Amino acid sequence: MNKPVNQAEFQTPVVTTGPLPASTKVYTHPAADPTLSVPHRSIALHPSANEPDVKVYDTSGPYSDASVTIDVEKGLPRPRTDWIVERGGVEFYEGRDVKPEDNGGATGRFLAREFPVRNTPLRGVGDAPVTQYEFAKLGIITKEMIYVAERENLGRQQAVEGAQDRVDGGESFGADIPAFVTPEFVRSEIARGRAVIPCNINHGELEPQIIGRNFLVKINANIGNSAVASSVEEEVEKMVWATRWGADNVMDLSTGRNIHNTREWILRNAPCPIGTVPIYQALEKVNGVAEDLTWEIYRDTLIEQCEQGVDYFTIHAGVRLAYIHLTANRVCGIVSRGGSIMAKWMLARHEESFLYTKFPEICDIMRRYDVTFSLGDGLRPGAVADANDRAQFAELETLGELTKVAWEKGCQVMIEGPGHVPMHKIKVNMDKQLKECHEAPFYTLGPLTTDIAPGYDHITSGIGAAMIGWFGTSMLCYVTPKEHLGLPDRDDVKVGVITYKLAAHAADLAKGHPAAQLRDDALSRARFEFRWEDQFNLSLDPETARDYHDQTLPKDAHKTA
Amino acid sequence: MNKPVNQAEFQTPVVTTGPLPASTKVYTHPAADPTLSVPHRSIALHPSANEPDVKVYDTSGPYSDASVTIDVEKGLPRPRTDWIVERGGVEFYEGRDVKPEDNGGATGRFLAREFPVRNTPLRGVGDAPVTQYEFAKLGIITKEMIYVAERENLGRQQAVEGAQDRVDGGESFGADIPAFVTPEFVRSEIARGRAVIPCNINHGELEPQIIGRNFLVKINANIGNSAVASSVEEEVEKMVWATRWGADNVMDLSTGRNIHNTREWILRNAPCPIGTVPIYQALEKVNGVAEDLTWEIYRDTLIEQCEQGVDYFTIHAGVRLAYIHLTANRVCGIVSRGGSIMAKWMLARHEESFLYTKFPEICDIMRRYDVTFSLGDGLRPGAVADANDRAQFAELETLGELTKVAWEKGCQVMIEGPGHVPMHKIKVNMDKQLKECHEAPFYTLGPLTTDIAPGYDHITSGIGAAMIGWFGTSMLCYVTPKEHLGLPDRDDVKVGVITYKLAAHAADLAKGHPAAQLRDDALSRARFEFRWEDQFNLSLDPETARDYHDQTLPKDAHKTA
Repeated sequence: MNKPVNQAEFQTPVVTTGPLPASTKVYTHPAADPTLSVPHRSIALHPSANEPDVKVYDTSGPYSDASVTIDVEKGLPRPRTDWIVERGGVEFYEGRDVKPEDNGGATGRFLAREFPVRNTPLRGVGDAPVTQYEFAKLGIITKEMIYVAERENLGRQQAVEGAQDRVDGGESFGADIPAFVTPEFVRSEIARGRAVIPCNINHGELEPQIIGRNFLVKINANIGNSAVASSVEEEVEKMVWATRWGADNVMDLSTGRNIHNTREWILRNAPCPIGTVPIYQALEKVNGVAEDLTWEIYRDTLIEQCEQGVDYFTIHAGVRLAYIHLTANRVCGIVSRGGSIMAKWMLARHEESFLYTKFPEICDIMRRYDVTFSLGDGLRPGAVADANDRAQFAELETLGELTKVAWEKGCQVMIEGPGHVPMHKIKVNMDKQLKECHEAPFYTLGPLTTDIAPGYDHITSGIGAAMIGWFGTSMLCYVTPKEHLGLPDRDDVKVGVITYKLAAHAADLAKGHPAAQLRDDALSRARFEFRWEDQFNLSLDPETARDYHDQTLPKDAHKTA
Repeated sequence: MNKPVNQAEFQTPVVTTGPLPASTKVYTHPAADPTLSVPHRSIALHPSANEPDVKVYDTSGPYSDASVTIDVEKGLPRPRTDWIVERGGVEFYEGRDVKPEDNGGATGRFLAREFPVRNTPLRGVGDAPVTQYEFAKLGIITKEMIYVAERENLGRQQAVEGAQDRVDGGESFGADIPAFVTPEFVRSEIARGRAVIPCNINHGELEPQIIGRNFLVKINANIGNSAVASSVEEEVEKMVWATRWGADNVMDLSTGRNIHNTREWILRNAPCPIGTVPIYQALEKVNGVAEDLTWEIYRDTLIEQCEQGVDYFTIHAGVRLAYIHLTANRVCGIVSRGGSIMAKWMLARHEESFLYTKFPEICDIMRRYDVTFSLGDGLRPGAVADANDRAQFAELETLGELTKVAWEKGCQVMIEGPGHVPMHKIKVNMDKQLKECHEAPFYTLGPLTTDIAPGYDHITSGIGAAMIGWFGTSMLCYVTPKEHLGLPDRDDVKVGVITYKLAAHAADLAKGHPAAQLRDDALSRARFEFRWEDQFNLSLDPETARDYHDQTLPKDAHKTA
């Protein structure tokens, strides 16, 4: 039951465009495939610095390219579709029809407008390799692999000076960070299951990205309609806005009506991987009654989302019937929405979860589109009191078992993690995840290191995120200041993204990522030399830095010092 | 050159008073000395919780006691003066006259009004013990020791249930946290130099507090006039405001004119320890020309501040002439203001720092008033590139040498630490400090774990603060969002305090402090049971939590769920 939107009143989403201050979008072309254009952001410094521009990882897509005209009604170009068709093993087909329940039965003025362009979906054919995991296993380097290698290197042709020293000087807890990322290294990491490139073959708009312990730590921002607030337009802009400030990934956690149409608008305009939790939509299709969920409804929802191009699915297949009683004495029970939906279903029916029993079939579906598993932590702790308990770890062990099944089926896999965990219990989460889940990438929410600061949980969790990122987590799911209290608005999204970006970067520095410190050093030199504009422009949030500066100190005296 | 204030226009500082939501000030009376009244804050829960009130550590002084009438013109009551006089070894004497240069030569309408009440200062007599360290060494338990033991226990008569389990379940890296704090334990920790109670005998208004690795982690908020903004009135309110939100300590870093009078207004109204950096005021007395500083001017400034009741002095006595060249190749050189003042002085004169050469005399002065040393880190790194370099560690080794001198002279000592340090280089700072400085309490600024997020340095540093607090730091100096950019306003002070409070609490949880988790658990139960008001009231910042909640979700449905 989102905000009712009359089709006639539907506004074309207005998105934020244009470069960040002093920044230019630059594209480099990998030696291994010069037809590819890999984006980076180049920050110009004041001539007095006598330093080259600083290139930084760019998540913002075409929106920040001054030379691109954005038309949200058309969506972004889909160059990746050609790569996929070219390498074969896939077919266009008449996809599933959109059903009224896909949009929660919304009709008339309550139904959000359809996205104006319809694309014919692709799917894998027979046993031909489709997923990046399958190609990697076969020793084949894909365009996606070449692309992400170039992206991780920021377009450099060789390692930066002192790269090996930085790697050696870091503490990466057994990770294997290279001084320079080659496409072959990317392939080998994917083949070992240690990294994923979430890239549904129906997400032609995607700028591929790699998630793994031996690469830069990534962050995810959650967006989504809810039952009480926000419209399609707002969600599209939230996605653009989050990636503008550094979100590598976006999850669309929409509930209520219009989920299908909202997601289509987001996907067709998304340069980043989009993740979802399909059980949320399936639940809407049974009017919110968990007990009424069926495998068939869920299966149909998976296919619906596979055809749209969702890049990864959170699937809480590790919440088994036998584990539910383990949460009985918890302070906060089951706090994962997906976990509690399935617990309700299992308890009502006294039956094992279909997410578990049908797991091989789920794999078969997801493989055909190369949708990456994000095996959900439905029993994650919702309070520090519940951290690292038997319920949590029993599920984690099951996720390890399922990881092997998914790999055997040819799928890419990452594993979700907690939650609320005090600092001294964080590392064991990472160590156990690596062991139980065979080094599949870990993707954690926070963790929040204390429960006593609602309103500041971006910080309580940013502390845990920086630490677990350092210990080996590959992607950090952001938390905004509104966590536990309400839905994040635009400002909250930005604060959440910047907080997690700095946490991820702190982790990269500590792991000894070979080029991470270059930006710190450039900013510190600017600070030491009182090049204020360079300081602002090199910072994660130039607007806020400039704004704070101007509030209290005389401007020009400092700015020209 | 602070804001000019005409005496006639001087406003009585308006300070924030009244209890926090659902909170009552309660006082307990230690068994070892029932004449003492030790304050705590008691948070009432909704009757449906069927739980007792939650008692929390209270830093806010009489301002949050609904039954106390505050008169800033008179200052707070001075009950501690009786304790000191009663135990003897001190004398009242005609103190030093206030000189024009104490207020930077401000006259007429530029001179801030004097505090209306003049107290006769106390000083130690001969070799009689004055400091907490001296009493502890003699096996004497002072009222201050009894008071802080009661305060750390939140007035409990015995250990909380499961206390020893929590201590055993934590990871305190070799600290020796007791299940229950006794006055004798406090005494023994002070005698070993592992803890301090900053408590100038002329700060009769003080509610004593203990700082040490085996106690709750404390935080400090910096305030202070500057050359460009803020008045005496604003600074008094900033002190009250900071302690209201949880600052255990406040440092007055005022510069410019009116330093003496500003400090007097702050001290006479301060229930918390007040620290200063005396070299700042000494520099104002020589019109900002570092080369003109002399031992005599500095010595006179120390006595001035000892008589006023400052509880601890930051003294950069470890910045030796021989170390300055070690900073030559740094990205950010010397960023400590005190460090750079002394480096300038030494380089201009090619002479060893008088803070080092006169250190024994400084000890003799500070001992007579029980002013605690906070040995400053004048060579702390100002960029992650400079972390843990030879300059930093050479100074730390000298601070260890000076710690022993100060202890021999009978003084209490803590040690200041960095600065900007990436995560993987934090622990070695703590380990080296413990070793070189013989376990004297560590008091760190941050550390900031990356340099790329100006505007968010409360968070880049909150990460480092939580970690180093866990590793063993006793007090964390806050950083506000304005760090590197401008002067914090009232909102920034609050955000800085709350951020550091949550970092300190996260550290207490991880160390296994026996009662720390009680508040988390109470809040988590409230969360699980949808007792929204209890959630807000138990949080570090009830106002923000309530405000964020109301913005986006329906109110009553949730609040009564």
